[in-house]
Amino acid sequence: MEVVSKKQLEEVVTLNHLLINIIEQAFTDLLVKEVQMPPIMRVDVPDYNGEVDIKSAYVPGYDSFAIKISSGFFNNYKLGLPSANGLMLLISSKTGVPKAVLADNGYLTDIRTAAAGAVAAKYLAKTKSPNVGVIGTGAQARLQVKAVSLVRKIEKLFVYGRTKEKAEKYKQEMEKELQVPVQLMEHPKEVVQSSDTVITTTPATDPVIRAEWLHPGLHITAMGSDAEHKRELDEHVVEAADLVVCDKKEQSTRLGELKGKSEKFVGNNVLELGQITSGAAVGRETPEQITVCDLTGTGIQDTAIARFAYERLINKCKGRNT
Amino acid sequence: MEVVSKKQLEEVVTLNHLLINIIEQAFTDLLVKEVQMPPIMRVDVPDYNGEVDIKSAYVPGYDSFAIKISSGFFNNYKLGLPSANGLMLLISSKTGVPKAVLADNGYLTDIRTAAAGAVAAKYLAKTKSPNVGVIGTGAQARLQVKAVSLVRKIEKLFVYGRTKEKAEKYKQEMEKELQVPVQLMEHPKEVVQSSDTVITTTPATDPVIRAEWLHPGLHITAMGSDAEHKRELDEHVVEAADLVVCDKKEQSTRLGELKGKSEKFVGNNVLELGQITSGAAVGRETPEQITVCDLTGTGIQDTAIARFAYERLINKCKGRNT
Repeated sequence: MEVVSKKQLEEVVTLNHLLINIIEQAFTDLLVKEVQMPPIMRVDVPDYNGEVDIKSAYVPGYDSFAIKISSGFFNNYKLGLPSANGLMLLISSKTGVPKAVLADNGYLTDIRTAAAGAVAAKYLAKTKSPNVGVIGTGAQARLQVKAVSLVRKIEKLFVYGRTKEKAEKYKQEMEKELQVPVQLMEHPKEVVQSSDTVITTTPATDPVIRAEWLHPGLHITAMGSDAEHKRELDEHVVEAADLVVCDKKEQSTRLGELKGKSEKFVGNNVLELGQITSGAAVGRETPEQITVCDLTGTGIQDTAIARFAYERLINKCKGRNT
Repeated sequence: MEVVSKKQLEEVVTLNHLLINIIEQAFTDLLVKEVQMPPIMRVDVPDYNGEVDIKSAYVPGYDSFAIKISSGFFNNYKLGLPSANGLMLLISSKTGVPKAVLADNGYLTDIRTAAAGAVAAKYLAKTKSPNVGVIGTGAQARLQVKAVSLVRKIEKLFVYGRTKEKAEKYKQEMEKELQVPVQLMEHPKEVVQSSDTVITTTPATDPVIRAEWLHPGLHITAMGSDAEHKRELDEHVVEAADLVVCDKKEQSTRLGELKGKSEKFVGNNVLELGQITSGAAVGRETPEQITVCDLTGTGIQDTAIARFAYERLINKCKGRNT
């Protein structure tokens, strides 16, 4: 069994169009194939303010699948450590034998999560969406914006973060990275009002976006909520939107922004991303629509990126480039 | 992150009294501590007759816990491979950082499962239980009997297996190992009727033991059923028993021999092993009682053995022996 380091993975997998296509295909597979994707397993470690999530998905016809272990230990900052850790196991679909440990420290999760944001923006943001807003200033606040920049031309970036220092750092880094002006905002409301596309990337337990701030043509991707107690959008946001999409209804109603919504509402008003990527349903149809996409993160994304990474590594060793 | 091989693990962990104590303590912990043990996660791989189970448990006060991935791919024999595979991850309770991959290929699972059988026999078999019977001739049929031999003096072993050849091999090996006569039986009924203690170790989907074969003083440990479709004891066995024990009610009612039993029956008639090991309830009280223990396998056993193995490895490296 091979152990692959984060560094090795960074060399073969980056956030680009190819990867976005891989993740888009994963969402299609989730809809059209008999995918085995069990509910997320979660181990709580309350003594240390920690949690471990385990995700997996087997896709028929794929010769391997991933089991992903990701942890968030929110006291780690006191020790000077990042809160997120984790790894992926790649398992042979034919024999169950573990093929590799991808010791990515959460790198692949970061990238595949951002790629899902790109898929959402591709189908749900207006074709012309030059103004992008982001709530939060962490790793996903960076990666999600980069992901959107691959599918929509960004001319200006608006950001809100609770910690001034981190927001300043974000501005500096992202202006350099994207070569567009980044404006710090005093309030999330200003971000929403200034933007065509808004991405929320926080572990908020109280909503950071209110329904009354929505305006025609807005697209929101909410990727922060992935637990029972988290919530980024107030409960009226999805009701006020013209089109609501999520990665997986079962997860979104339990862990994401569809908490508390009736089965009827979800059945009648919500699409899964795979319905759009597969062509079974359409995404945004007019520039005036308000669209929302809730991403909770799915095991099939982990299987898709782990397989892709492993294949690239194998090909690299063989001296080929895919 | 260390990767520890099966060979290294075999050198530091064997089935003995110390390990039985460790597993017994785990069952006590499961009852008396605020253990976080989520439901078992299962990924089905129907195309290859495979399944992967993921178990875990965090015990307050322990500086690490295990996440165990175990697979059963039942077409592997066609490739000359064992059906079982797997590994354990040892995760730091303080930071969530993976400390080690215990690449045990199922070795630790085999051992901790057998140790649970020893705990069951210790509290539930008659003090004098010289005749032991086993249904099945695989790895657990060997290990469970060895485990029982550590807590009860065995004088004779009765075995039933569907494949004559495997049963003959079992007899040869176990006579050498235990230094007691092993008798092959033509039918499970004969095994039950000849034995004080019976262990069922099969992946049966149709019961292999019938209630009408039970006799005073019998103890049965059923460790084979760990899935919705499996079953080793007919539905009347637990009703006919004087004392029914399981490792974890939630698992036993879903995956084990308590399937289909009412909440009331389970509430009034079934103990968890930890109630007995902790002293909150008593096990066998008279030589006449009929006792049954259903083992489905719990994440806390994995955490206990993974921590024990890792500690022994560390101490070995330091040149000490615990």
